[in-house]
Amino acid sequence: MGNTTRSKTELSELGEFGLIQRLTEKIVLKNEGSIKGVGDDCAVLDFKNKKIVVTTDLLTEGIHFNLMYVPLKHLGYKAVTVNLSDVYAMNATPKQITVSIAVSAKMSVEALDEFYSGIYLACERYGVDLVGGDTTSSLTGFTISVTAIGEAEEGELVYRNGAKDTDLLCVTGDLGGAYMGLQLLERENEVFKINPKMVPQFAGYDYILGRQLKPEARKDILPIFRELGIHPTSMIDISDGLSSEIFHLCNQSGVGCRLYEDRLLFDSQTKKMAAELNINPLVAALNGGEDYELLFTIPVTEHDKVRNHPDISVIGHITDRSEGVNLITAGIGQLIPLTAQGWNGLNERIKE
Amino acid sequence: MGNTTRSKTELSELGEFGLIQRLTEKIVLKNEGSIKGVGDDCAVLDFKNKKIVVTTDLLTEGIHFNLMYVPLKHLGYKAVTVNLSDVYAMNATPKQITVSIAVSAKMSVEALDEFYSGIYLACERYGVDLVGGDTTSSLTGFTISVTAIGEAEEGELVYRNGAKDTDLLCVTGDLGGAYMGLQLLERENEVFKINPKMVPQFAGYDYILGRQLKPEARKDILPIFRELGIHPTSMIDISDGLSSEIFHLCNQSGVGCRLYEDRLLFDSQTKKMAAELNINPLVAALNGGEDYELLFTIPVTEHDKVRNHPDISVIGHITDRSEGVNLITAGIGQLIPLTAQGWNGLNERIKE
Repeated sequence: MGNTTRSKTELSELGEFGLIQRLTEKIVLKNEGSIKGVGDDCAVLDFKNKKIVVTTDLLTEGIHFNLMYVPLKHLGYKAVTVNLSDVYAMNATPKQITVSIAVSAKMSVEALDEFYSGIYLACERYGVDLVGGDTTSSLTGFTISVTAIGEAEEGELVYRNGAKDTDLLCVTGDLGGAYMGLQLLERENEVFKINPKMVPQFAGYDYILGRQLKPEARKDILPIFRELGIHPTSMIDISDGLSSEIFHLCNQSGVGCRLYEDRLLFDSQTKKMAAELNINPLVAALNGGEDYELLFTIPVTEHDKVRNHPDISVIGHITDRSEGVNLITAGIGQLIPLTAQGWNGLNERIKE
Repeated sequence: MGNTTRSKTELSELGEFGLIQRLTEKIVLKNEGSIKGVGDDCAVLDFKNKKIVVTTDLLTEGIHFNLMYVPLKHLGYKAVTVNLSDVYAMNATPKQITVSIAVSAKMSVEALDEFYSGIYLACERYGVDLVGGDTTSSLTGFTISVTAIGEAEEGELVYRNGAKDTDLLCVTGDLGGAYMGLQLLERENEVFKINPKMVPQFAGYDYILGRQLKPEARKDILPIFRELGIHPTSMIDISDGLSSEIFHLCNQSGVGCRLYEDRLLFDSQTKKMAAELNINPLVAALNGGEDYELLFTIPVTEHDKVRNHPDISVIGHITDRSEGVNLITAGIGQLIPLTAQGWNGLNERIKE
């Protein structure tokens, strides 16, 4: 575990401008709308007559990531994809990102190269340009701020507030995997801290580890919507946990919801890890977060369009606000009011 | 000194969503182009057919600010204006900002209210909308990330790379004040640490303290350009120090430069503080940074337009690249090659 690099160059050897030069010299802007990237007071962009969407995230060491077990390349990749996920959740297409970092003097140039290799890999895979940022120092941990900018035609945009009574609640992919991946990493990190000679037990869990360490944003869903002739009435990405996201949709739309436990999809590794750690996978899905799947609603009249799609599950339906937000349990079908727990980012999330 | 608040509410009492609600509930979007602000996966903006500029800054406690003597309201204000300064340096008009913060649990809700009151004051004065951000926790210090978005017609934009041989080098306002203000704050903080009963000696230095603690961006210069019929050939804002900014302009434009010491304008407080601390005000101007004035070039044929303007000084002229970047000293007119020192953000800047 841990991040090892062969050679180590001190950041002070390059200086601020030298470092920026090194980290950005290979950038080739690919999007027509990226007129000017790194190197001036601002980036300059052109979206013609399209609407622009903007989202930003701030990630701090010890809260959002633990460098003991998160490879820097994955961290760079994830820092980008979690922002792109917000853009896709608007039914928009990401085009540019800015990346700012604050680094402590103990971080090496080679470590930052690793981090940026993940950033650039995500840029390449998602067709976005890195057009700006800030590079500065930190007295303590590593801090990352990413802003993503995307575009959409006005009529394409999907907000959180459009869900209507009787709409179907749908989700892409499977849930709870990222959370179970985190539990596995935490467990092995604890073992490692006690005995550094122990070999981490990761075999058979590549999927949930990947869900935690290098999540993908659902770029593929937008063309699927077009293919199926679907325009969601509301949409949000699952970053804080299904429960919290359902509450966001319902609150903003002024509706209630019924979520059916037996409709939730779990990967076999999620279930296996959950059993091993004695965690109910439902809890991982509801409160774990970081799945970066898309949660959306469509009119019930469009049920046939999604019914058999392998990437989409219908997990519930919208109700009148007065009915509240409820989970219908598997088996006996008990109705349990959901809470908007989600992940409280203001509490410490990962342990040292 | 220090930040005192009467009542203290723990952040955990509000939780993440409660805190976001409290900090953003008073927002009223004012710009026509701000279609959707805080509360969805992304902000949605509309710039019609205009070009968009984007800039971002990351500020960390202990490097960019010292909470021992920086009032939180000023910090919020400054975090915004330094970004707007970058937008004006493109000859563009800022329209929106996003603000992300990472806070340690020890920070109170009231302290964040103070910080945001500065953010909102800047938004009001500069006509920009707060449209998004991220609120998260930090294991250590306070971290701020601001992204500013602005607009301009294509032909209005001014880049760093357009300076031509014989162009005049111009600067707005006076220089070195922010640096001398910082020195004063540092000195009094040292005194305070040794004897907390000592009353800080700030009398007569309100201007340079203001330059350091709550700098303004030169919003007023764009209409002046239009009034004077000036379109700069290149422009940059002075954040890292005049020397470093001149190097940026010259490098990107492929030219050299002569800067005349006797043309530099200093405020009387800057000179007085510099004398008191035995610092050459020239050094404060060249390497101090944070003046947030605009440095720009215009064709020599336009000299008459700026010659007598109270807000603009002609401080030098552009030369062929082969002549390098030189300072012509006052008095005997010695020619001294400048170095691109500026402020190296990767070294610690302020002491604890």
